Amino acid sequence: MPAPRQIFLAVIGTGGVGKCFLNQVQEIAGRLSQNAQAPIYLSLILLARSSKVLRHANYAPIKLSSWESDLSASSAGPLSPSEIADYLAAAPSKVVLVDNTSNQDVADAYPLFLKKGISVVTPNKKGFSGSYSLWQAIYGAAANGYGAGGYVFHESSVGAGLPVISTLKELVETGDEVRRVEGVFSGTMSFLFNSFQPVAGGGGKFSAEVKKAKDLGFTEPDPRDDLNGLDVARKLTILARLSGLPIENPTSFPVQSLIPKELESVATGDEFLARLPEFDADMDKIKAEAEKEGKVVRFVGSIDVPSKQVKVGLEKFDHSHPIAALKGSDNIINFYTKRYGDKPLIIQGAGAGGDVTAMGVSGDLFKVLRLLH
Amino acid sequence: MPAPRQIFLAVIGTGGVGKCFLNQVQEIAGRLSQNAQAPIYLSLILLARSSKVLRHANYAPIKLSSWESDLSASSAGPLSPSEIADYLAAAPSKVVLVDNTSNQDVADAYPLFLKKGISVVTPNKKGFSGSYSLWQAIYGAAANGYGAGGYVFHESSVGAGLPVISTLKELVETGDEVRRVEGVFSGTMSFLFNSFQPVAGGGGKFSAEVKKAKDLGFTEPDPRDDLNGLDVARKLTILARLSGLPIENPTSFPVQSLIPKELESVATGDEFLARLPEFDADMDKIKAEAEKEGKVVRFVGSIDVPSKQVKVGLEKFDHSHPIAALKGSDNIINFYTKRYGDKPLIIQGAGAGGDVTAMGVSGDLFKVLRLLH
Repeated sequence: MPAPRQIFLAVIGTGGVGKCFLNQVQEIAGRLSQNAQAPIYLSLILLARSSKVLRHANYAPIKLSSWESDLSASSAGPLSPSEIADYLAAAPSKVVLVDNTSNQDVADAYPLFLKKGISVVTPNKKGFSGSYSLWQAIYGAAANGYGAGGYVFHESSVGAGLPVISTLKELVETGDEVRRVEGVFSGTMSFLFNSFQPVAGGGGKFSAEVKKAKDLGFTEPDPRDDLNGLDVARKLTILARLSGLPIENPTSFPVQSLIPKELESVATGDEFLARLPEFDADMDKIKAEAEKEGKVVRFVGSIDVPSKQVKVGLEKFDHSHPIAALKGSDNIINFYTKRYGDKPLIIQGAGAGGDVTAMGVSGDLFKVLRLLH
Repeated sequence: MPAPRQIFLAVIGTGGVGKCFLNQVQEIAGRLSQNAQAPIYLSLILLARSSKVLRHANYAPIKLSSWESDLSASSAGPLSPSEIADYLAAAPSKVVLVDNTSNQDVADAYPLFLKKGISVVTPNKKGFSGSYSLWQAIYGAAANGYGAGGYVFHESSVGAGLPVISTLKELVETGDEVRRVEGVFSGTMSFLFNSFQPVAGGGGKFSAEVKKAKDLGFTEPDPRDDLNGLDVARKLTILARLSGLPIENPTSFPVQSLIPKELESVATGDEFLARLPEFDADMDKIKAEAEKEGKVVRFVGSIDVPSKQVKVGLEKFDHSHPIAALKGSDNIINFYTKRYGDKPLIIQGAGAGGDVTAMGVSGDLFKVLRLLH
């Protein structure tokens, strides 16, 4: 690969995904620097989390082997996204900013970063699933859109490391006609319904499955943040826009919340969990109705492109349908297109977790490295 | 996309895939030229099939709307790959060669094309599944390998338009540990065994299913070219090499042929089909054995990376296994890796057919266009 000698990396966010990414980058940077034919020197020049920033004079590299303690030891206060943009734009090599937060303020600044020639790689859904004007500003500024700035990639904003966005982009770009996208886009929802109504029969009470999922670490601290369907709605917004639909925002289409009205405003997640069994009869009814039709119920998102319908919620599926047969907390995404006809192109696998999400980010980093040659 | 104004295209092969590709390119070229911000002018400057060549003086573009009649009307004789390479190397813009043949001679010339700065995009398996030295020469010369020449992409050499090779490359590149790759890699074999032993029970005699597949156009003119397993072995060779195993050639690992010894040397495919029923009892025995274990038999390829074992042949699968549940002539590819754990990353869908294969080629063309900016 005829590549540049030196690429700078800036990373915001050091939570679950951020940690995994920094581990992956340590290995990748070592490998790239040792390529005898065309070495690339990938240097971390800025590391930030909400309250702290680590950077050295003259853009000297931050040690990847000791980033955690070095960041903790830093007394430098937080920088705003625009301060970070100014700092990175003045760097003497091309810069890739990796946003491993789920922060709206950082996402709002993507157009600024891109215009300054800084590439952006991120699993953060906020920039691509918020207002349509932000989406347009991002792709309008990016070199892989219509702009002359940095490149932007966000593969892991849907399905973590699964090749969902790249596949959809290629279908559209090569002139296929995407008709329908349908799938299970949440590891939490996948786990809940695969356990609540397995194809083989059985399954527990819905409230018990939610509690089990929380105990296993498969839900947000407050499970309502999964059950409200907004996470899935954000992913659908991204895929619908890539399919050519100008979706205004993730609440501009029907999204079914699994939070009973009466529990929307209880104060804590624990109180919510304690009261959820009161509503098990409602969920059992839904289950029984599906069973009567020889089906199972699953929480899915779908995009019907010709009719411009996007929706998120419960649907019933035959036992032989790939969506019914899903296991564990896997995601599945079905692309129905003109070229593929009645049998969809299917992508399936873990759609959440630090390491596979970070892998999507690392994969995007490689795309940028190739384009920056 | 800040892209070059002008890219030249040369296409060899105008069979099923070639025709579909030329149709796709006509639409794509029109679209790219009309991009107001950064138009790309994609011009076809050479079109060749085994006996004929079409090219105009001074590399003037060949009309995409009338290529078929113009090529037929051309009286220019065939050119050798090295004559084509010389012609393209002297062109005044960057050139992408699209090889839509399954020809070994063209594949043997890839290192030559690449060294001359010509990029290569192809569904032709021959260059990547033949001798290991040819593989090394190709990737040694390519800009996306270690060389300084053109770029090479061959997504559609495995699974047609399905994102199989790009996914495997990303797993390896981002530092995941690929442990096992397993799947159904032939539309013909998929159709045959999904009909011969459906999960739901029933299914016809093996010879009858082969005849049906041939009548539906799902086999090569002589079905033995599918049943010998070599097509699958070539695909496995490619994936194993991408996984890091230096496979010498597609016959250097166990490949089970479904052609009865006695019928290997009969003169014609028709004679083969006429005598195949004599061997139905053998296949029925294999089916019954699987059934006794509550399983179905499928023709699969697998790569076990740690033990360096590659093999192609019949295997038994539980009814609930995704490989057993396959429908029609779909392919399925399971990637088992360290990051994905015990539940694989799965890619599934049509793995043969002119339009989806051509889509893989068109997708690769876009990759090259982005890299040539």
